[in-house]
Amino acid sequence: MSRNIAVGKAQALPIEQQSLEIVERKGKGHPDTILDAVVEDVGVNLCNYYIDNFGRILHHNVDKGSIAGGRALVTFGGGELLEPIYICVVGRATTEVFKEGELHRVPLGTLTLSSINKTLKNTLRFLDPTEQVLMDYKVKPGSADLTHVFEIAVDDIPRANDTSFGVAFAPFSETEELVFQTEQLLNSDAFKKKHPEVGEDIKIMGLRTNDDIQLTIAAALLAPLIPDADHYKGVLNDITDAVLDQSKKITNREVNIVVNSADDPKRGSYYLTITGTSAEMGDDAGVGRGNRANGLITPCRPMSLEATAGKNPQNHVGKIYNVLAQLIADHVIKEESRVSEIYVKILTRIGYPIDQPLIASAELVVEDQGSWNDIEKSVIGILDAELADVCSVQQLILDKKVRLF
Amino acid sequence: MSRNIAVGKAQALPIEQQSLEIVERKGKGHPDTILDAVVEDVGVNLCNYYIDNFGRILHHNVDKGSIAGGRALVTFGGGELLEPIYICVVGRATTEVFKEGELHRVPLGTLTLSSINKTLKNTLRFLDPTEQVLMDYKVKPGSADLTHVFEIAVDDIPRANDTSFGVAFAPFSETEELVFQTEQLLNSDAFKKKHPEVGEDIKIMGLRTNDDIQLTIAAALLAPLIPDADHYKGVLNDITDAVLDQSKKITNREVNIVVNSADDPKRGSYYLTITGTSAEMGDDAGVGRGNRANGLITPCRPMSLEATAGKNPQNHVGKIYNVLAQLIADHVIKEESRVSEIYVKILTRIGYPIDQPLIASAELVVEDQGSWNDIEKSVIGILDAELADVCSVQQLILDKKVRLF
Amino acid sequence: MSRNIAVGKAQALPIEQQSLEIVERKGKGHPDTILDAVVEDVGVNLCNYYIDNFGRILHHNVDKGSIAGGRALVTFGGGELLEPIYICVVGRATTEVFKEGELHRVPLGTLTLSSINKTLKNTLRFLDPTEQVLMDYKVKPGSADLTHVFEIAVDDIPRANDTSFGVAFAPFSETEELVFQTEQLLNSDAFKKKHPEVGEDIKIMGLRTNDDIQLTIAAALLAPLIPDADHYKGVLNDITDAVLDQSKKITNREVNIVVNSADDPKRGSYYLTITGTSAEMGDDAGVGRGNRANGLITPCRPMSLEATAGKNPQNHVGKIYNVLAQLIADHVIKEESRVSEIYVKILTRIGYPIDQPLIASAELVVEDQGSWNDIEKSVIGILDAELADVCSVQQLILDKKVRLF
Amino acid sequence: MSRNIAVGKAQALPIEQQSLEIVERKGKGHPDTILDAVVEDVGVNLCNYYIDNFGRILHHNVDKGSIAGGRALVTFGGGELLEPIYICVVGRATTEVFKEGELHRVPLGTLTLSSINKTLKNTLRFLDPTEQVLMDYKVKPGSADLTHVFEIAVDDIPRANDTSFGVAFAPFSETEELVFQTEQLLNSDAFKKKHPEVGEDIKIMGLRTNDDIQLTIAAALLAPLIPDADHYKGVLNDITDAVLDQSKKITNREVNIVVNSADDPKRGSYYLTITGTSAEMGDDAGVGRGNRANGLITPCRPMSLEATAGKNPQNHVGKIYNVLAQLIADHVIKEESRVSEIYVKILTRIGYPIDQPLIASAELVVEDQGSWNDIEKSVIGILDAELADVCSVQQLILDKKVRLF
Repeated sequence: MSRNIAVGKAQALPIEQQSLEIVERKGKGHPDTILDAVVEDVGVNLCNYYIDNFGRILHHNVDKGSIAGGRALVTFGGGELLEPIYICVVGRATTEVFKEGELHRVPLGTLTLSSINKTLKNTLRFLDPTEQVLMDYKVKPGSADLTHVFEIAVDDIPRANDTSFGVAFAPFSETEELVFQTEQLLNSDAFKKKHPEVGEDIKIMGLRTNDDIQLTIAAALLAPLIPDADHYKGVLNDITDAVLDQSKKITNREVNIVVNSADDPKRGSYYLTITGTSAEMGDDAGVGRGNRANGLITPCRPMSLEATAGKNPQNHVGKIYNVLAQLIADHVIKEESRVSEIYVKILTRIGYPIDQPLIASAELVVEDQGSWNDIEKSVIGILDAELADVCSVQQLILDKKVRLF
Repeated sequence: MSRNIAVGKAQALPIEQQSLEIVERKGKGHPDTILDAVVEDVGVNLCNYYIDNFGRILHHNVDKGSIAGGRALVTFGGGELLEPIYICVVGRATTEVFKEGELHRVPLGTLTLSSINKTLKNTLRFLDPTEQVLMDYKVKPGSADLTHVFEIAVDDIPRANDTSFGVAFAPFSETEELVFQTEQLLNSDAFKKKHPEVGEDIKIMGLRTNDDIQLTIAAALLAPLIPDADHYKGVLNDITDAVLDQSKKITNREVNIVVNSADDPKRGSYYLTITGTSAEMGDDAGVGRGNRANGLITPCRPMSLEATAGKNPQNHVGKIYNVLAQLIADHVIKEESRVSEIYVKILTRIGYPIDQPLIASAELVVEDQGSWNDIEKSVIGILDAELADVCSVQQLILDKKVRLF
Repeated sequence: MSRNIAVGKAQALPIEQQSLEIVERKGKGHPDTILDAVVEDVGVNLCNYYIDNFGRILHHNVDKGSIAGGRALVTFGGGELLEPIYICVVGRATTEVFKEGELHRVPLGTLTLSSINKTLKNTLRFLDPTEQVLMDYKVKPGSADLTHVFEIAVDDIPRANDTSFGVAFAPFSETEELVFQTEQLLNSDAFKKKHPEVGEDIKIMGLRTNDDIQLTIAAALLAPLIPDADHYKGVLNDITDAVLDQSKKITNREVNIVVNSADDPKRGSYYLTITGTSAEMGDDAGVGRGNRANGLITPCRPMSLEATAGKNPQNHVGKIYNVLAQLIADHVIKEESRVSEIYVKILTRIGYPIDQPLIASAELVVEDQGSWNDIEKSVIGILDAELADVCSVQQLILDKKVRLF
Repeated sequence: MSRNIAVGKAQALPIEQQSLEIVERKGKGHPDTILDAVVEDVGVNLCNYYIDNFGRILHHNVDKGSIAGGRALVTFGGGELLEPIYICVVGRATTEVFKEGELHRVPLGTLTLSSINKTLKNTLRFLDPTEQVLMDYKVKPGSADLTHVFEIAVDDIPRANDTSFGVAFAPFSETEELVFQTEQLLNSDAFKKKHPEVGEDIKIMGLRTNDDIQLTIAAALLAPLIPDADHYKGVLNDITDAVLDQSKKITNREVNIVVNSADDPKRGSYYLTITGTSAEMGDDAGVGRGNRANGLITPCRPMSLEATAGKNPQNHVGKIYNVLAQLIADHVIKEESRVSEIYVKILTRIGYPIDQPLIASAELVVEDQGSWNDIEKSVIGILDAELADVCSVQQLILDKKVRLF
């Protein structure tokens, strides 16, 4: 078995030499990210149920769904939720299983509700799922047409359940690192302890033009903890200071920060919430509309449109290949120090064994062109090994050891 | 007023010189595309209602939603839909308008239902929305926080209602053209007349590695029109022939075509439907999960993740800038023959006038480097003029003169 | 097999001698009646599907559900529906059938949608189900616990699937006849032809105190057909005249008529609709909340609370016994002229064969006490014969030859 | 102001002398009763919110809705809920209130969810609303047409918002007392402590034929607490014994008891649940489909079909008059010892002040015919006083001091 692997030179300037970068991250309390977490957890819980009860993952994909924002009334020092946030999980799952001549039924509905509750409690400190969220699910039994693709795979390599691809790159540029770490900082336990007024819904947009970086931060603040405009202003200043502080450890470039630029104090308009997420009022969401599997949205870099969240980790290449591509990219950067930048793309066709994609390609930025052949060989080896080991991606996903959004 | 415009040289190899291209298009009957059409039409109908009744577009965004696939029983020569397709439109809209001291109510619900019905009838020849679709909508009044941003704009340039960006490129590569035109062909009236058995749900995945192009086509066929496996096979052959024929007009590269590669005749497994779309059985959908505004998914090119469908065309830069970027790219390619390839990116911050983004950039592939200064000036002029004219994008969208998905 | 039948003398004054009667009828366009018709038709269509495909009726009961009224804007001469009417059918049905080793699936969802559409079109001249109604259904597979009760019955008498009862009386009193016929008149084709302005939503409340009858009529008028208050007033007068006219054929008692007593012309408040039913705006509904199986609500007479609509006609005694009791009552009045009034009650226990209830009782008003023994014997014979023939009730229901609401 | 009151002699035999009685009670865990409790509590909580915030009750009626049963897998000693119970509250409520020039919004959605949660927790020991119930509500702003009827009433007597009636009788017959007390016993804290295996879903059907009473009891037992069929049998015996014991204190008539007559041990069919209610599996529900305001269903007695639960207690006569009729009946029996039985009926027309119905009638069973005139006068006095005090019914309802189902 020889895999279809192509390794070549990068076809673009190294990212730091490019004149423009746009980088975005939607924090864990952003509606899109909440929804990704909700459906991914439903998927993982389903997987665990299947494994516990049937020894293997059964067909499912719960990778669609919506959040319809609620309605809130917010004022400094308080507020109330008038209409709950609506969350609906959409997809398909195996709910009836014949095993040794007997029919087993999967508790799909209660598992889903229980899972949504837990995810919300883990994500948002100030949301009460019981009274502030209306939950629903529209999950049907899966397509019979694909079932056999799945079944064939029991003792063997699973077969791709879609014609799809994954892409990744490494390492992060400075701007990417800055955007990512800014959200991590503002949503860290340490920061929340010091500044509980800062909600989990944080969106960072980074723009680099040459050596100038502008960070636009939207941070939902918690109205009940903020008595007045002065306090509000103080929190924004604290955010700016903390982010600026951290940015110095990441880049020497000039960093400008704007927080909550839609505020209009003259009109009494501030970014205040009761629950810490804009889903309570202004914002709806769809699965897969937020961060890519590396945690960022990077229009100047190759991206996949696949929602990784909620897809089954056994044969849905739209999920597996995005994770695998990242693992490969990270692996190469870590193991092969002569490669300073890598782009990985993996594409396959429905029905193909997932360890033998139609193509797996890597494009490399290499300074020492002289050792190209050597590097090429080394990178091909890494790709080959990782592809051979593709089935281990599933466990990493179930153990939540890889980022998906 | 001087705009922040940056024009520079392309930072990557011209696309045709790159060794790898991945290009995808989800045809008009693909669940994701159906849903994009549904919400966009709801949005346009809302706009028209607002304009007719209040002289201007009011705040709304109906850019979220889901399709939960139905359940069908399909056999050669027939079949029946057991469970309907569920379509839910999610978003927010202005439903109460005070005008000259009086309260006017917008018929949001009936307008939405009527709109969904019409879109489905226009999209799928064999779907009966009345009995085969379960419709719902979760549309709430919009965020008060943004309303004033919107209102300021009445006599003036609208202000961005989000921190967001648009990207585009031109022209299509051969592979892109091929993928796009293949779907257009298979969904053309002429082809449907000759081959009514081919449903509207067509997905094309193109892979180019150097000079070799592989097209993977998934085409939902109509079971009631196909008596047996031989007929089915014949239709697949007709598809292959037609696509191959057309491909010769587009490229000299070697084109390989695979249609419905998940079929497994031994197991009696074929890609058959009753309605012409996989939404009847296997496939769910989310808004903005399909084609970008140029009609394609191109991971090797810059892409925005914004769903353009359903967003308001007046101040939602996630929609407007993706359209505008494409208009600019096309304009430059058409007007400035010395530019052979262009990438456009426009980014702004919430609250900024939409004709003055944070940055508007163009990267050009230019063969004649000698005349760079001249070209640069010319392209800056085009960008400046298009930005100045950004408000005309709205009308193009309402008139459906620009592609969105 | 001897049945438990008890025939005795009426334990109350003959109805016409009683001093007070309250009688109500909700016309066919009243939300409660619409919903009863909707679920009954879904049930009958399911029965027919089961019979056509499996040779027998399978377990189901779709006897719950709701209408949530819409929102309308109505003015003389026009108006529009702002929010659709929501109709949800709730119950359970057999959706998977194993027959000769093969699994058959029942198209429950599409059958339900198609059925709702047809019922609404048949009921309301001015409602467009496609754009003015949001349909839903929550129908689950039936209780396994009862399934065997059902299955035993295949070659035999079905067994009661609930501990329940049916009641009936005959003949109608004058007041009852008057209330019933008034609605029939106002919803007759002839009257609608002459007065198309009168909607299908008509509610009649009759009160008789001794020899004085007061009819309170609420009639939803059609705004688009009524240009002004004068026209409106004219229609009310026409209604009053027609009802008064007819009443003279039914009773010699004094009849007073009030139409639309909630109107308040000074405040511009009239009972106007766009669709002919108050479900468009003010009124919600539940199954089984309207007329009893004889078409009336009669608090001064024995009544069952069972919703007959939507229940399966094979073994749900809450449906069958209410119909059967009426058939018996009518039969006795017709065949045994010495009986001037009859009350029938039939009660059974879950699991009993439906032709052998726990008790079937008749109470008679008989003027000629001398021939009691003879009459008693004759009535017992009728009860016994009707009980023996209970299975024929099912076909009468399927053929819509008996009234249910 | 003189009220239209009619007092006369009973037009039927005293109930104990009648040969047949049918009496039913659905216990507090029966789906219909659960739903009545859910919507009534939502209504009361709304009332309290209105009073706290606006000083008065505003227009609302949440007297419709459905429960769609879940799906459970039950075995001796355990089981699990596969699909949650769906509960939807339907109605209308005032959600926007203009007060002193400002718009106040009512937190309808969160109040509803919070209320449903509390009611379920209070009703069923073994149901976890968070993970086992899917909640929804379809509550719209009320009918503008009736609003003024309501508003007029602010400083005055409210006006009837419907043409409707209430009925009641007193005292309970032996059979009625027996049926009622049986459920009270089986759902009492003392009994539950001793027999936790008995769920809250208990349905009692009583049939009296002359001096023979048959009680048919359906009691949902809790599978997790019952290891095997013997234990199950033991619990049924305990139920029978306890009920029989209590029955001796209520009646000297012969009482026969059958518990769970649908069981079929040979087929392994028992009435087992996980949650204590059949809503988990077999049974759906509608508002107002269960007990009348006196807690019973009594087809041999006058009954109203109105659902009292969820209606507003300020001007909805379908609720107020059923409560008032019962208060009057109880009052007469308590105060006027010469009356041994009473039937009360109150009917009004939409728009009438609620203290002046179209008719309020009482029919009396009086043994001492000689003092009729005196008794009549006394009873008229009680009716008149109670009608004059009708507005106090509202507070009794809000304080939950009167039974509604």
